[in-house]
Order: sequence, then C-alpha cells, then structure tokens
Amino acid sequence: MLVTPSAHSIDPQTGALAGNTGRYQKRLSDLRGLYADSDAFEHAAQEDGERVVYTVEDVRPEASAGDLIFGTTFMEPGRIGSEFFMTRGHIHATANRPETYYGESGSGLMLMESPDGQTNILEVHPRTMVYVPPLWIHRSVNTGNTPLVMSFCYPVDSGQDYEVIARSGGMAVRIMADGNGWASVPNTGYRPRTQTEVDAILATQA
Amino acid sequence: MLVTPSAHSIDPQTGALAGNTGRYQKRLSDLRGLYADSDAFEHAAQEDGERVVYTVEDVRPEASAGDLIFGTTFMEPGRIGSEFFMTRGHIHATANRPETYYGESGSGLMLMESPDGQTNILEVHPRTMVYVPPLWIHRSVNTGNTPLVMSFCYPVDSGQDYEVIARSGGMAVRIMADGNGWASVPNTGYRPRTQTEVDAILATQA
Repeated sequence: MLVTPSAHSIDPQTGALAGNTGRYQKRLSDLRGLYADSDAFEHAAQEDGERVVYTVEDVRPEASAGDLIFGTTFMEPGRIGSEFFMTRGHIHATANRPETYYGESGSGLMLMESPDGQTNILEVHPRTMVYVPPLWIHRSVNTGNTPLVMSFCYPVDSGQDYEVIARSGGMAVRIMADGNGWASVPNTGYRPRTQTEVDAILATQA
Repeated sequence: MLVTPSAHSIDPQTGALAGNTGRYQKRLSDLRGLYADSDAFEHAAQEDGERVVYTVEDVRPEASAGDLIFGTTFMEPGRIGSEFFMTRGHIHATANRPETYYGESGSGLMLMESPDGQTNILEVHPRTMVYVPPLWIHRSVNTGNTPLVMSFCYPVDSGQDYEVIARSGGMAVRIMADGNGWASVPNTGYRPRTQTEVDAILATQA
C-alpha cells in the first residue's frame, strides 16, 4: 500500500510537531523511583505531582518493518535535589536498533550505558546530531535552565524496553548539578548486569 | 561489536557535518541530461562545468542491517534556463525504505513520484521534517535564492537506485521558475513505467 508523503513543521521552543500521530506526557508522579533523593522527590510530588516533566510527540508509519518513526521530545528544566530532570530511558526491545537525536533548543546530555556497564555521555546543543548506536541504553537529561527540545528518528521495528534500567537499580551514573555545570556521580544503588542479563539483551538482536 | 556513540554538529548554512565518514560532490558536468534545456546546460557547462551544484556528507555505521545513515545535503541556488537546480534523485534499491529530510536553511521542494507515476511535491523550509515514505522516488529542488541545506536519515540497508529516473526519461514533472515562485510542468520526455517495470521495483522490497 502506498503511503502519502507528509511534511511536519517542528517548533524548536515547544517541540510541537505538526501532523503528529502520537503524543504522551510524563508527569512528576510518573517518575517515582528515578531520583536519588526520594525525600526531595516526595516533597516535589506533593507540591505538584501533576506537573509535566516531558512530552513526546511522534509520527508512526503504517509499515511494520524497514520504516522509520520520527518525532520530538520536550523536557522542562528542573532538579530533584541536585539531580537534573531526565527521561525514564530505555534500550530498544530489539536491542541492535539505533536512534538519532538532534538538538532543537536548550542544552543537555545523552546519558548512555552499554549492557556490560560502560557509560558514555554526550552533550546535546542546538544543531548537534547525537548518534545512539545499536545496543546502548539511553536517557536524556536537561542540564540547562530552559527546556531541552530534540527531534529524533529510529527504525519502526525498534520497540522500547523501559524496565531495563529499573532492573539494575538505575543507570551506573547520575547527573548532578555542580556549580553552574554538571557532574556524573556513581549511582550507589546500581547493580551491574549479570552475564545472563547481558546475554538476554544481546539475544533480542534481529 | 559495540559501536561508540558520537555527536556531530551541523552548520545550517554550509551543511558541514562534523565527524562525517563520507562526502561526495556533484558538479554541473556530472548532471548532463537532467535538464529540459540542453542548450542552456551546455552553455553553463562550458562556462564552468566544474562548478559544484551539491554536496552530500554522511555518517555511515558499521552494521549492515537495522542501523541508520544520517547526513546533510547542501545545494547551491541556480537554474538551467528556467529550471531550478536539483539532485539526480533516486529510489531506494530496497524500494520500501523511507527517508526523512529536515530543513536547515534555504527553501525548496521534495519532488516525489510513485512507481506507477503519481507525483507528490512538498515544500521544505527550515524546521520542516519531510517524510518520504517507502516506495517513493525522490529528488530535492532548490527553488530559493540561497543554498538549500537539509539533514537526512534513512535505514542502512536502503541503497540507492539512481538510474530509475533516467530509465523513464526523467520524472513526470519539472520544477520551473514562475514569476517569483515555482511551477510544476509536465516533462514531455517522460515515459511512464510499464507494469513490468513497476513490478521489478516492488520486487525489491524486504
């Protein structure tokens, strides 16, 4: 079946994607357990748990293989204690699927972790294309004082495993405010994946 | 094998892609036969056939399936007679592979044609994401007075068939200057694909 071509303007300030077919929002109350300082989290959640932390809009094609999904992510600036706002993060359910993230406005980080526990952190600025290769768990972090807006693209048959991070007690490092900048600090609750867990991720490749 | 993540700044004016792994340029003399007015083409080619019309830079991953290629295209403004500068154009060798093009600077068109001869034209402006669905032949056209710069993304196993357009005597329509704007006019040399030719394209799907 022939799909009709389409054009979608992106608002670099709001992340609004014209003609999007999907949209979801994560509110503060959805993000319990992500942050190191649970007291600070509960305090913030009591103040305004319905506060939207990030919004994702996308266009999903009808084909089930060989096609692309593209969209935008908008994340508010903010911290829980001294830990910057972040997305839940995921690895692709078919783990050897990559993703590109392109900076539209604001500044932040792509925090990445390989199944065997290597950490890689890249800064995202406007007009920076970040390539998340196959097999990397990835999460974006807003280290700025303004919203972080990015556009993204990934293969339609990628899928998302959002539990991979929770199963290890978080990612190996946390991104904390440090003066006017950021620092990565070890996550004391992190449990490195066992070889069996690594093998289970690698087995999803297609 | 684990591939290291990478970040690539894009210059929206020049299309320069930091850390690119590939680059090619098409000079006027490479584009003989594309334009309606062959006298005007030969005149321009004699004046400066080595003139670069467009430049493509990309990053190609090492994986052979499931991965993404991304990059930029920079096209000078100009015309041959009243026909705007354009890329050669292609369909993906695996024809059901899509592509996204994102406007970085300048303005132009994505001229698309389905195997059975339907034409679809979308304008490209800065911050416009154009989705070229599976099975569409596509060519970009610079209808502005400044360079047209776009970034793009497509699956690594797409491939390019650049001959598909030549086999039909060009695309069904040409994009010509019309006052301060553009108009699409029928290409009098166009030969619609036979059902056998259409079937051969559809047979490449994977």
